[in-house]
Amino acid sequence: MTLKNTAWYLRSRPTGEVDASHFDVRTEEVPDPGPGQVLVRNIYLMIPASMRIWMNERDTYLPAVPLGTVMRGITTSIVEKSNDERLPVGTYVNGMCGWQEYAVAAVEELMPLTHKHPDIPLSNYRHVLDFQGLTAYCGLTDVGKPQAGETLVVTAAAGSVGSLVCQIGKKLGLRVIGIAGGPEKCQWLRDVCKVDGAIDYKSDDVGAKLDELCPNGIDIVFENVGGPVLDLMLDRINLRARIVLCGFVSTYFGGEQTAGRGLMNLVNQRGTMQGFIVLDYLPHYAEVMGILTPWVLDGSLVHPEEILDGLENAPVAMNRLSRGENHGMQLIRISPEA
Amino acid sequence: MTLKNTAWYLRSRPTGEVDASHFDVRTEEVPDPGPGQVLVRNIYLMIPASMRIWMNERDTYLPAVPLGTVMRGITTSIVEKSNDERLPVGTYVNGMCGWQEYAVAAVEELMPLTHKHPDIPLSNYRHVLDFQGLTAYCGLTDVGKPQAGETLVVTAAAGSVGSLVCQIGKKLGLRVIGIAGGPEKCQWLRDVCKVDGAIDYKSDDVGAKLDELCPNGIDIVFENVGGPVLDLMLDRINLRARIVLCGFVSTYFGGEQTAGRGLMNLVNQRGTMQGFIVLDYLPHYAEVMGILTPWVLDGSLVHPEEILDGLENAPVAMNRLSRGENHGMQLIRISPEA
Repeated sequence: MTLKNTAWYLRSRPTGEVDASHFDVRTEEVPDPGPGQVLVRNIYLMIPASMRIWMNERDTYLPAVPLGTVMRGITTSIVEKSNDERLPVGTYVNGMCGWQEYAVAAVEELMPLTHKHPDIPLSNYRHVLDFQGLTAYCGLTDVGKPQAGETLVVTAAAGSVGSLVCQIGKKLGLRVIGIAGGPEKCQWLRDVCKVDGAIDYKSDDVGAKLDELCPNGIDIVFENVGGPVLDLMLDRINLRARIVLCGFVSTYFGGEQTAGRGLMNLVNQRGTMQGFIVLDYLPHYAEVMGILTPWVLDGSLVHPEEILDGLENAPVAMNRLSRGENHGMQLIRISPEA
Repeated sequence: MTLKNTAWYLRSRPTGEVDASHFDVRTEEVPDPGPGQVLVRNIYLMIPASMRIWMNERDTYLPAVPLGTVMRGITTSIVEKSNDERLPVGTYVNGMCGWQEYAVAAVEELMPLTHKHPDIPLSNYRHVLDFQGLTAYCGLTDVGKPQAGETLVVTAAAGSVGSLVCQIGKKLGLRVIGIAGGPEKCQWLRDVCKVDGAIDYKSDDVGAKLDELCPNGIDIVFENVGGPVLDLMLDRINLRARIVLCGFVSTYFGGEQTAGRGLMNLVNQRGTMQGFIVLDYLPHYAEVMGILTPWVLDGSLVHPEEILDGLENAPVAMNRLSRGENHGMQLIRISPEA
């Protein structure tokens, strides 16, 4: 039987939201793996907010996806044919195997899930026990340099990274304030993530709420959004504050520009604003997974996920992220786990 | 004979440029110094760009000047009456003695110019061999962390701090590009400060010129201005670039806001943007003056100054700075040196 692969090729670059018209969907024969290669069947496709900027013309931390190629995708897959004993058939692997059902990849391009715990769902290994967890933990601890008792403000706090940052912040003894959109997300942050305060940027006076909830000022900002809220936070930073720049979701979809009036206060307060990329922390992957796994097992690090079935839902999932309609990690289930 | 003091009191807070109507000028009797105090006659008043923000309502790195008090001023003075043997009559001192002819100050509030060299003019000790030199040297070396061969871009490069940064950058083996307003300043940067390239932000396509003059990208930005040029520089930073935030002169006078679109590239390039204040480096004052003094003596660190006579020219001098009409340090001579 010849396997058929359905693959989504990038046809055009969106300016705002994404839809099926930006892709060509083609059904092709699946090639056999060559020496040192394996054939994988993709199970989960992760939808990170930054996926949207890969579709723009400009290179960012990764090159722009070229038009006419399979859309880049961060995947969890299972090996179905193997030409290399390092990855036998049946191995679960993480990789960048694209918006498609099958892929042929070199063994070096794939990471076997050796840290998979039998009591933890496979899907968790494409967010909390993978790059989202690594991003949250390393961004907060290495860039944010927290000291117990300090005040941390997290934006997109109900998101897949933000919610982990809030909870890790509490574990490190910080006062944690989360900013999110809508009363449900704020209630969830208070009830489930146990933050000290939550701000609804859609309806609250953010500056006034920051004043109320951060009576001792702000020592660390974990910034996922950008825009005018960044200025309101910068207005309230303490001496030698650290602004951890994780992303600027407000700009990914062609939306409002990142404001910068508040940068003057970086001078006044000798603050540091530093960007980072999770890829820089790959050498710490195993160490950090060893810290996070017990917290996932004992339920003290909650990590909601929303799984939609079928690649045809991938554009929908991206737009849900841009509108803030998601709650937790957005994943696409491309094929069954087993 | 009773000495009379003419003092400028802040009457109202300007929104744009400054003029005499924002002050009450009063002539008062000069009090006698008490125990531990001296009476000084002010000789030079330095006009830094940041003086303008002291007049706003909001506190910055220094508290806002209260209405109805003598306008704050950074001065070089001579002791005329002394009640403390640590500062005998005739000693030149730096201090914050305000917009007035005479002041009574505690000895602890004044810094005697023990590093005064007989061949260097007194006025130099209120800029290149004082806070301007300390700002340029420590901002570039401690915050900018330069490595020989890297590319440095300096804004307000023909200004009192910027021009020192350019020259110190060359001494440290950097490729130095200066951004300034107008062809004369750019020519001066090339001819006198020996920069590798100069960009006239008033007439050049700044992005295109940055591409041309920084073929290997930008490693360090020494930022004095803010605004859209900051974004153009951020667009071109290299991996782990350092953005030294010294000031945002574009915002001091109520002008255009600091742009921030380029902050996204701090994430992509893992860049660091860090503010600093010269006061943090006071413990290194003597050490840095020891480095700069030989360069001033041998003429290899040029440091133009423009001296206007009389306090009535202080608002004029501030506005010249805001319009970029000055060339080098603006000083007001309040009274003769001797």
